[in-house]
Amino acid sequence: MARYKCIISYDGSGFSGYQVQPNKRTVQSVLEATLSKMHKGDTVKVVGSGRTDAGVHAKGQVIHFDSPLLIPADKWEKALNSMLPEDISVLTVASVTESFHARFDAKGKEYRYVLHLSQKRDPFLRKFAYQYPYRLNLQAMEQASKFFLGKHDFTSFCAAKTEVVDKVRTIDSIDFVLDGDLLTIRFVGNGFLYNMVRILVGTLLEVGSGERKPADLVEILAGKDRRLAGKTAPAHGLYLWKVFYK
Amino acid sequence: MARYKCIISYDGSGFSGYQVQPNKRTVQSVLEATLSKMHKGDTVKVVGSGRTDAGVHAKGQVIHFDSPLLIPADKWEKALNSMLPEDISVLTVASVTESFHARFDAKGKEYRYVLHLSQKRDPFLRKFAYQYPYRLNLQAMEQASKFFLGKHDFTSFCAAKTEVVDKVRTIDSIDFVLDGDLLTIRFVGNGFLYNMVRILVGTLLEVGSGERKPADLVEILAGKDRRLAGKTAPAHGLYLWKVFYK
Repeated sequence: MARYKCIISYDGSGFSGYQVQPNKRTVQSVLEATLSKMHKGDTVKVVGSGRTDAGVHAKGQVIHFDSPLLIPADKWEKALNSMLPEDISVLTVASVTESFHARFDAKGKEYRYVLHLSQKRDPFLRKFAYQYPYRLNLQAMEQASKFFLGKHDFTSFCAAKTEVVDKVRTIDSIDFVLDGDLLTIRFVGNGFLYNMVRILVGTLLEVGSGERKPADLVEILAGKDRRLAGKTAPAHGLYLWKVFYK
Repeated sequence: MARYKCIISYDGSGFSGYQVQPNKRTVQSVLEATLSKMHKGDTVKVVGSGRTDAGVHAKGQVIHFDSPLLIPADKWEKALNSMLPEDISVLTVASVTESFHARFDAKGKEYRYVLHLSQKRDPFLRKFAYQYPYRLNLQAMEQASKFFLGKHDFTSFCAAKTEVVDKVRTIDSIDFVLDGDLLTIRFVGNGFLYNMVRILVGTLLEVGSGERKPADLVEILAGKDRRLAGKTAPAHGLYLWKVFYK
């Protein structure tokens, strides 16, 4: 048995998220079905760095799997891409020791959220950026984002149904990059709770629109109540960009 | 009756081309169905600057239609966009005189063809650029493209089934823009025959790969035979970018 680490990219539009669900087309189930074919029908378990929701994209999701097949790492990439559907792509495959674990060894992640700041919808961006047609105060948003930096209990920014107990996470950086009418907000941290980036973005948008003030975020964080924060921004603007390992 | 000129954009992936065909989803039929709804079921004929094939995109297709409705031009845009599906968008609407004709008045067009020069397929580009994984000699391609400039009989670069008699067209410019691994080839001319840009691109790719020499194009043009030119490049890399009027 050898273990392989893969960096994969997918257009989330056609998937019901990353994780296997009965009768749904998910990233994990497509990967496992493809690997099963390559292993004469044997089950091959795929472990991802974490889940992504329905519609969320990935430019650098990381997975691992074990295989008894004697294929060099560089041949795996071609073999997998030749069998995978067009909306998912294997970027790199590396042979790793059996101690490597895509989820447990992840030390941090980068997510990006892309906003299309325009009154006119663009047919080419409709699945890849969230169209926001109203005025935004970017300075207020950047100011507000500073309150999220560092170690906090992010209960207010986590979907209420989450079962995770420890909701303390550390955000290392939040950057804003404006390129024409595309605003990309980049989040780097040691981990993100269920829907966390989307709720952070939804709340930052409410600051940008003037509904909330940057300093309001202090109370929202302290309140540890999902109802205090803003709306959950749509899935199709979100990209799992990179997973960091030691 | 008032005549309106619209600039529209569409993601060609979900359309069987521009022109109405029985039982097919086309750009024209979607536009006419939407306008018909706005006119209480009355037929509204839409005239485009020209057809685009199945899978071909548009960033600046131009159409016109006539309507008895008393709606200011700026309200038409919102009304139409609120009813049109997400893969088609009206960028501008202008009130024009009844002498304006989207097809007959077009003096020229710009088409762009986008190539993704990469061995790795990108799930986000699969419908929007043609992935070309082999080495290309861009200098040879640019050199070859010079032979297309000016007024020529483009019979060799036109789908054989075309019924048009006069196959003489003038190409004003062909530009190559390389941005990372995306190569965009921009064609500006007074008109383009059926499949012409895609055959020009397919032939330029055969020059870039070394299968043909730039100077071969002289003979191909002179031969006036479709079989002499290269393959037709795939539709999904092509964009009708702009239509020029006086």
